[in-house]
Amino acid sequence: MSFEAAVHAKAIQLDKLSLDMCAAAGSGHPTTAMSLGHLVTVLMYHSMRWSPEAPEDPLSDRLVLSEGHGCPIVYAACADLGVLIGKDPASRRPMTRDDAMNLRKAESPVDGHPNPMEGFPFFDAATGSLGMGLSIAAGLALAARQDGIGRRVYCIIGDGESREGQIWEACDFIVDHALTSVLPIFNCNAYGQSDKVSPQQSAATLAKKLESFGFQVKSIDGHAPDQIHAAFDEFAKRGKGSAPMAVVATTVKGWGAPSVQGGGWHGKPATGAKLQKAHDELDAARVKLTSALAGDDDLRIFPPSGEMPAAAEAAEAPSFSAAMKSNDMSSTLATGRFATRKAAGLALRALGRVNPAIVVLDADVKNSTFTEWFALDKDLADRFVECRIAEQNMMSAACGLSAGGKIPFCATFSKFVTRAYDQIEMAVNSGANIKILGSHSGISLAADGPSQMSLPDVAWFRAFTRVRDHRGGPGFYILQPADAFAAYGLTLAMAEHHGACYMRTARPDVEFIYDDKTIFNLGKFEVLTKGRDLLIVSAGFMIHECNKAIELLDKQGVDATLVDLYSIPFDQNALLDLANQNGGNILTVEDNYAGGLGSAVADALTESGDGFTLQQMFVTRIPKSARDEEGVLSMCGLHHSAIAARAAAICGVGV
Amino acid sequence: MSFEAAVHAKAIQLDKLSLDMCAAAGSGHPTTAMSLGHLVTVLMYHSMRWSPEAPEDPLSDRLVLSEGHGCPIVYAACADLGVLIGKDPASRRPMTRDDAMNLRKAESPVDGHPNPMEGFPFFDAATGSLGMGLSIAAGLALAARQDGIGRRVYCIIGDGESREGQIWEACDFIVDHALTSVLPIFNCNAYGQSDKVSPQQSAATLAKKLESFGFQVKSIDGHAPDQIHAAFDEFAKRGKGSAPMAVVATTVKGWGAPSVQGGGWHGKPATGAKLQKAHDELDAARVKLTSALAGDDDLRIFPPSGEMPAAAEAAEAPSFSAAMKSNDMSSTLATGRFATRKAAGLALRALGRVNPAIVVLDADVKNSTFTEWFALDKDLADRFVECRIAEQNMMSAACGLSAGGKIPFCATFSKFVTRAYDQIEMAVNSGANIKILGSHSGISLAADGPSQMSLPDVAWFRAFTRVRDHRGGPGFYILQPADAFAAYGLTLAMAEHHGACYMRTARPDVEFIYDDKTIFNLGKFEVLTKGRDLLIVSAGFMIHECNKAIELLDKQGVDATLVDLYSIPFDQNALLDLANQNGGNILTVEDNYAGGLGSAVADALTESGDGFTLQQMFVTRIPKSARDEEGVLSMCGLHHSAIAARAAAICGVGV
Repeated sequence: MSFEAAVHAKAIQLDKLSLDMCAAAGSGHPTTAMSLGHLVTVLMYHSMRWSPEAPEDPLSDRLVLSEGHGCPIVYAACADLGVLIGKDPASRRPMTRDDAMNLRKAESPVDGHPNPMEGFPFFDAATGSLGMGLSIAAGLALAARQDGIGRRVYCIIGDGESREGQIWEACDFIVDHALTSVLPIFNCNAYGQSDKVSPQQSAATLAKKLESFGFQVKSIDGHAPDQIHAAFDEFAKRGKGSAPMAVVATTVKGWGAPSVQGGGWHGKPATGAKLQKAHDELDAARVKLTSALAGDDDLRIFPPSGEMPAAAEAAEAPSFSAAMKSNDMSSTLATGRFATRKAAGLALRALGRVNPAIVVLDADVKNSTFTEWFALDKDLADRFVECRIAEQNMMSAACGLSAGGKIPFCATFSKFVTRAYDQIEMAVNSGANIKILGSHSGISLAADGPSQMSLPDVAWFRAFTRVRDHRGGPGFYILQPADAFAAYGLTLAMAEHHGACYMRTARPDVEFIYDDKTIFNLGKFEVLTKGRDLLIVSAGFMIHECNKAIELLDKQGVDATLVDLYSIPFDQNALLDLANQNGGNILTVEDNYAGGLGSAVADALTESGDGFTLQQMFVTRIPKSARDEEGVLSMCGLHHSAIAARAAAICGVGV
Repeated sequence: MSFEAAVHAKAIQLDKLSLDMCAAAGSGHPTTAMSLGHLVTVLMYHSMRWSPEAPEDPLSDRLVLSEGHGCPIVYAACADLGVLIGKDPASRRPMTRDDAMNLRKAESPVDGHPNPMEGFPFFDAATGSLGMGLSIAAGLALAARQDGIGRRVYCIIGDGESREGQIWEACDFIVDHALTSVLPIFNCNAYGQSDKVSPQQSAATLAKKLESFGFQVKSIDGHAPDQIHAAFDEFAKRGKGSAPMAVVATTVKGWGAPSVQGGGWHGKPATGAKLQKAHDELDAARVKLTSALAGDDDLRIFPPSGEMPAAAEAAEAPSFSAAMKSNDMSSTLATGRFATRKAAGLALRALGRVNPAIVVLDADVKNSTFTEWFALDKDLADRFVECRIAEQNMMSAACGLSAGGKIPFCATFSKFVTRAYDQIEMAVNSGANIKILGSHSGISLAADGPSQMSLPDVAWFRAFTRVRDHRGGPGFYILQPADAFAAYGLTLAMAEHHGACYMRTARPDVEFIYDDKTIFNLGKFEVLTKGRDLLIVSAGFMIHECNKAIELLDKQGVDATLVDLYSIPFDQNALLDLANQNGGNILTVEDNYAGGLGSAVADALTESGDGFTLQQMFVTRIPKSARDEEGVLSMCGLHHSAIAARAAAICGVGV
């Protein structure tokens, strides 16, 4: 049997199972799957170096299915090949046809879209929210390069989803970093969900675009085994220094079964007589296309070669003061003031020197986030990834780096992190060990105005802090360091924790509050002042305003407690004890819109069932520019005089 | 004096003022401004049809400064021309040099980045978070076309920011919709913030990319007045049916003053001797480039011609039942079940027929959001905007449509709305009258799994509900209709309200709860069942689970109250009264991550200072696929049996 006939036979077999499993599930995207039958067959049964017995092997070539809804075709191949599945790595078993037929069941690891954390380790990341796969693939390739591993990364992208700008961010990124081990494969089946794709996403236009971005493009018939084979072989044989390559494959949505082709068949399973008809059509196609007896001889999977380099152990990082001194900043240290964003940059450099898994990404603001202290260290420079002004690609690339065993820290202004919230959520769904350093947070950057201020960010990340992730930890830790010691310590703590973390630093230089002896633990808080009349809870930059307010209150005879709630989630019982010790009077202060720290405290108080009085101070207007911090704090009603006035009123004292 | 000399003289004058105002502010981006001096001079003093006395005139050509940090150059021109400024439209006054020198002051309308709502109506939208301007420009152009107005829209884009994928989404959108009245002008000054731009963003590569996207590209020297003039003239003379045009201008960051050129001068004002040196260099350039006496004869601004079409009045929309009947769905109406997403689609069609300002945008899911009922109505089709799979562009285009006087409704899955949170926040900052219809919200879509489920969305939008926008209303209304009557009524209410709204509909068909007589008001709620033992507060799809739970509780002798909190914000006092009438026992139920409805109630309770017991039920795990709603509700602990059990426990009754 020829290779061509063998591919046709296998693709048709997988197409048929795709139809069946979607029919069983009562939903899914069989026609998208069928447009991918031949491409996936050549990849998974021939071109990729991998082993069905070790789908997560980092030495193996990887397949990122950016158009995640096409997953039935990959599931069909995995069922045919007996690829290991199962949520618990210790008790994985070969996938069967029955597993495929359990698609989308609540207890099944065969999820509606690629979802490695539910027990399908062949995939490296959750996909299905479109446009992210190529960035993930790029991250996987970067990790491999850093480890000196030769794995290739294939990425299948839908024509419709190539409308997402992130795809083009990824293309720029691949060219910038010469990630020639990534092969983007555009599946041009000409249909989106609700209509044909735009001519802007036609195979011809995509090829032109890719060439203009610097790719060498191979345009093929995505159902012609020899053309697919030749394209993938050409990719595999390319030497270092070649331009990145891309494949633009013209395909048919519902290939082989005319009765399920055309508009109106997106995301719709064929059932009953329609299912039978599609099977009959595919059977007829097989008769026509496979002249000899079926046989798999030409479809042989080769395992990867090589060995994983031994993972280097992480050593302990120096203290903040030691790091300042070893970076020639003793005199700055002596001033007693340093911005939290700078301390985070310093911590990354210190971390990078003791932990080889640390990778730092930035989006053209490294001189503001101070990740340049990592980038400019010649021993670390090759683990610094300049992503330019493209935050979506940065976060998904970090998700890929995490899947490749790295600990990625992504830095930019917190405001611009917003740009990638969907990518961040998909990284959480992927179980990614992602760390986000958002600088210039809240209103304290003042002069640049609201287009650069992060304001609803604490509310958004807080939603994840009460979700258990796949490892049982919180879906996110939000960390808000009040001084440089805290920012430094919490950056180290983020690296220790396996899971997603968001640290929110600020622009201004601020006074030291802590010292090298303070230990910062995720989930804890610090009591800065202990009083008995009122509990003030704040974090980050606002701690300094609260400290000034406490001085004013002290003059009025109000004896307030101040808690630095540097972590959300936090120890709720310990905070409730403090509230009770302060007469049940609580004031929260934060430099962002509602739903953040104040609501976290409100949630904790109301769960207890005890009576408390809580007043929340937060940003209640859309801010604008002011020339300095004082100006913007006054504008937003968060100046320390306003805090003191509110606190005094709670305690029944006039100011 | 020649045109060329006049432009040089004016550009140098504006450059010098840009330097001065940033020096006065102590921050800002003078060198970016100086790279734009000639381009902005030719635009604002020659090519644009507009009047400094009526900067917001919709007939005028518009300038969208996508790289918002370059705004000092526009401020300088406006100060020179006496363009009207001021927050209150009734008392605007001509801008002066003093105003320019007040850049970034708290009380100044001359904000750090373009910010029309603070009193600078020359700009149509807030920019500064990069990559959004071209989409806004496209929206402005679409609105003009719908109104039959001939205004042109110029958009200046930085080379660094053209790394943002959204720029390329906008390019596709402009070609798809033949928006030839938009002129993208790429300012290639070769420097980003922290470094030179990537070769991927060089003038040559940008030109190639733009050509591959379907633009006719004019590459020019951005400091050569005649070349700029010729390019803009060519644009203005183009006839209908031409390809869209783009200008790629090579410029110098800090043009005219070598002492502030090169890396290290991004976002940094020159002060003291450095400022003087830059001035001296610019003066020398003027001597060299302007051989005759200065004079403005060649720089003459022409006002726009034409007249605004009379705005048609909006009429009243029919009731839900009437709309169903007139759309041949009487038999569906009789089933007593209909999905909220479908009712929203129906409402858009009804609204479109009575209100000519309504425009509907969708991102290739119109057959899921049912905006196709608007799109397929031949009387409305030209107000339907297919945006394809590119949500960022959709939201910013809607911001532009709003600035052009339209009421844009943007529809897609709530999950994919996340993609555009930064664009949505900038639309709020712009004062945009934007309406977002997120479908398939929460977990009830079940089978597709978490990549399609919106989970932290309520928390994020809630952050805006406690912000006062520039008109004094909430920054956002979150609306969660429980049935079709509510979805229909709330869609109409969204159109009535001037301000940002987010409506969260669900996939499943659900039973009717209301009827045509129910009036849905933003900020209110409905009491569905009145009891005395426990107050259950829920919204949207979960109301139906709560109704079933109430039946179970009734059998156990628990007499619960059920509130449909369809709006956030809501009437807090009325809800507290109900809580008190129910023994202070409250249970909240929602189908999303924490920080949403439950925290909204917690905030209200703790502000009151009374003692209440609140338990919150929400999604506490990362969901996965299940084949039906029952399966996913059980998986997430939100099945009605779980709700009843929790409610009974609060009331001390065993289940």
